[in-house]
Amino acid sequence: MKYDSGTLLFAVDLLGTLLFGIEGATAAISSHLDLLGLLVLAFSTALAGGIIRDLLIGAVPPSSLRDWRYSAVAFAGAATVFFLHRFQGIPGTVIVVLDAAGLALFAVAGTEKALKIYKIPPLIAVLLGTITGVGGGTVRDILLARIPLVLRADVYATAAMAGSAGMILGRRLGLSSTLAAVLGAVLCFCLRMVSVWRHWNLPTVSA
Amino acid sequence: MKYDSGTLLFAVDLLGTLLFGIEGATAAISSHLDLLGLLVLAFSTALAGGIIRDLLIGAVPPSSLRDWRYSAVAFAGAATVFFLHRFQGIPGTVIVVLDAAGLALFAVAGTEKALKIYKIPPLIAVLLGTITGVGGGTVRDILLARIPLVLRADVYATAAMAGSAGMILGRRLGLSSTLAAVLGAVLCFCLRMVSVWRHWNLPTVSA
Amino acid sequence: MKYDSGTLLFAVDLLGTLLFGIEGATAAISSHLDLLGLLVLAFSTALAGGIIRDLLIGAVPPSSLRDWRYSAVAFAGAATVFFLHRFQGIPGTVIVVLDAAGLALFAVAGTEKALKIYKIPPLIAVLLGTITGVGGGTVRDILLARIPLVLRADVYATAAMAGSAGMILGRRLGLSSTLAAVLGAVLCFCLRMVSVWRHWNLPTVSA
Repeated sequence: MKYDSGTLLFAVDLLGTLLFGIEGATAAISSHLDLLGLLVLAFSTALAGGIIRDLLIGAVPPSSLRDWRYSAVAFAGAATVFFLHRFQGIPGTVIVVLDAAGLALFAVAGTEKALKIYKIPPLIAVLLGTITGVGGGTVRDILLARIPLVLRADVYATAAMAGSAGMILGRRLGLSSTLAAVLGAVLCFCLRMVSVWRHWNLPTVSA
Repeated sequence: MKYDSGTLLFAVDLLGTLLFGIEGATAAISSHLDLLGLLVLAFSTALAGGIIRDLLIGAVPPSSLRDWRYSAVAFAGAATVFFLHRFQGIPGTVIVVLDAAGLALFAVAGTEKALKIYKIPPLIAVLLGTITGVGGGTVRDILLARIPLVLRADVYATAAMAGSAGMILGRRLGLSSTLAAVLGAVLCFCLRMVSVWRHWNLPTVSA
Repeated sequence: MKYDSGTLLFAVDLLGTLLFGIEGATAAISSHLDLLGLLVLAFSTALAGGIIRDLLIGAVPPSSLRDWRYSAVAFAGAATVFFLHRFQGIPGTVIVVLDAAGLALFAVAGTEKALKIYKIPPLIAVLLGTITGVGGGTVRDILLARIPLVLRADVYATAAMAGSAGMILGRRLGLSSTLAAVLGAVLCFCLRMVSVWRHWNLPTVSA
């Protein structure tokens, strides 16, 4: 049972890493960076969220630096983009879907990791899950010297927060940890996709 | 006695968190961000300085993530700005005063925390106090993709440094730790306010 | 023997700190920052790479904050630039050479530190060496709100990676750790200089 949940968490983490690696590499190409910039951006987008979370909970060296498979998967995502792109650009819609999926996977994986800390308050677990989800994209935008999506976008961090909170709520209501994680991920993904599709926006202040 | 100093440090930390939360939220409004951007910016401005300090001294998870009251206070500051702003903007002068007060409180709280490390050299304690003070505003400006105030402003990090150094000097001269902290905070606050008021600038090089 | 290698590592680290301190201060002057901005930028450029590496491997407080000589050397580099610059600007060529030398020294010192971790995979040691080398310049560019050199430049992180990998390869082939470090540093420095001189670029994708 323990083996299963650990393996699942690892698979979710790697899949999120691949998706965010692809997304980071695509952002590098849109910004006319060279091959190395593409690798650095894929690496940062894919792994920064988890690294920040691991630093915050004191799990050092971060799992993505202890295990070479994380970097390998991020670089594989970058390589795929690099070669595919010579034939055909990746459509924007695909990127938005990949990004929402990566956000959902990382939010759930981050919350799962945080919940392993002894007596962590739920609000903090949600914050750590959210940081894991949005961290990579934020570092990507900082490196590209633009205001991070998390600050500009309508429902982005909100979706990660909702997924993380839904997962914790599910556990409280007695769901198995796997089912709660699936619930959280689906909630985050759908919320993000619907918000893009319907152009949902949070209220702003007329400054 | 120990109880008193711990409580005081906590109160100082929370007050600084509130002030910087208000300031971060105001910066979000000036940059036309939505409600979530406002929350993220309030959170980062209020807590990043302390989180960076805690990471540097190895106090993980950082106190602001272990204790839910920090996030709650930062979000309360953000909510205040969000609702107040619908009626009336917050004048720039108020923000400058709040910012100077937050800088002073955080510089002192950061130095206090650093001094608890066994055999820390004074220069490093001053650096950690300064980082605690200026860290939040720096992360805020990085997120907004502009050159941080700490690099642009005349007397900003200098004020934090002076407050931190004054506090350590006061302790060396035999003041109680509370009195030394008050001295440091007043020194930092006054230096910053006077520099704004008199348009003090540090020498620059004619490049 | 242990004494020698420790002393050498420390000397290499301090020399890199001085070079990057000079470079950061020069970047501050080009961006018309004041004296404090110059100090902050020299400090960040010189020490951020090592601080990030130490955070990632859990060596807290980072050595550059535990030992006051690191900050002192970074500030000495800044002071040199500040006074020299009044008489005569520092030529761009000198800066490029200093930067390549700092990159080589930090990549090697970072790899050396990473290799002390029990059972670290070689790929991760190379990543940590590269992060140590390029971290300072990246933080410098983030603070100046521009896209980091590591993303824009042709052969920059590649040179650090090659130096780090060359050093590890040298050790595997039976070279003494000192000789392997010299080999790595020379490889990184030459690769960077030749790439600047010949305007080498990595392949880009026609986006």
